Amino acid sequence: MLFYVIMENNNYKKFMLLAIEEAKLASKNGEVPVGAVTVYNSNVIAKSGNLMVKYSDPLMHAEMIVLKRSSEILANMGLSIRHEKLDIYVTLEPCAMCAQAISLCRIANLYYGADDPKSGGVKYGSKVFEHSTCHHKPNVFSGIEKEKSKELLQKFFKKLRNSNI
Amino acid sequence: MLFYVIMENNNYKKFMLLAIEEAKLASKNGEVPVGAVTVYNSNVIAKSGNLMVKYSDPLMHAEMIVLKRSSEILANMGLSIRHEKLDIYVTLEPCAMCAQAISLCRIANLYYGADDPKSGGVKYGSKVFEHSTCHHKPNVFSGIEKEKSKELLQKFFKKLRNSNI
Repeated sequence: MLFYVIMENNNYKKFMLLAIEEAKLASKNGEVPVGAVTVYNSNVIAKSGNLMVKYSDPLMHAEMIVLKRSSEILANMGLSIRHEKLDIYVTLEPCAMCAQAISLCRIANLYYGADDPKSGGVKYGSKVFEHSTCHHKPNVFSGIEKEKSKELLQKFFKKLRNSNI
Repeated sequence: MLFYVIMENNNYKKFMLLAIEEAKLASKNGEVPVGAVTVYNSNVIAKSGNLMVKYSDPLMHAEMIVLKRSSEILANMGLSIRHEKLDIYVTLEPCAMCAQAISLCRIANLYYGADDPKSGGVKYGSKVFEHSTCHHKPNVFSGIEKEKSKELLQKFFKKLRNSNI
């Protein structure tokens, strides 16, 4: 049983570190450094950072991109994302849009890194999963590798502030 | 002033009736009948019904589609959706995902038809616009041509129930 827990720990750290790599890549491209990874049967099915700047589209949050890609990949396999058990790893607490998207896709487990008191929609703000209008609530695990995610965001915004002075 | 109000009324009815046409088309394709239209400088910029069934993608709500298309169209014109004044017309109260997307795109005015106590995220449920984590709140006008929208949804679900018996 202990072994199982250790394996679990290793797995979820591994996937979160992949999400953090996506956040780093995003940062290099001038995007707010947030990354996300979807996992299906222990395999990574999609990974991305934010792409809002690239596409001039404020809806291109990392979570939305990986959920959409996962839907496509599963549909090509003749499967529906709503009927499969997927997990999502995100470096930052999802906003209300992404939280509701996670619910609509019936994601089994949401693992996220840093909390987002300013714009979050899971632990903070509209707390999307906590209402009767939310018809599927994933298991939520927060704080995974949160220092790494926070540091990336802080560095990014510090650099942005300095460049604007 | 009265004239202005009457003109306004005519306009928003006209755009909502277009959204209802999109909902009807969606219904014919086996989609839950919800339609949306975005308006920019008094012109329709994008219109769509739900496309969840077509793309096996639970995130393809009418609102998400028209917002994404509007972002693309404006980006091609060298403009950002976040800096322009767009309006959105939706036949049904948006869910939390779509409400947050409307906020992220900084839509000026949201006009919607029927309330959605079961899955809505504006007047019901997580009430996305009512939290400090929501950094832009559109003006919200509800109940426009709501009977037409409700009737479409009721007919659709009645037919669905009968076909499942």
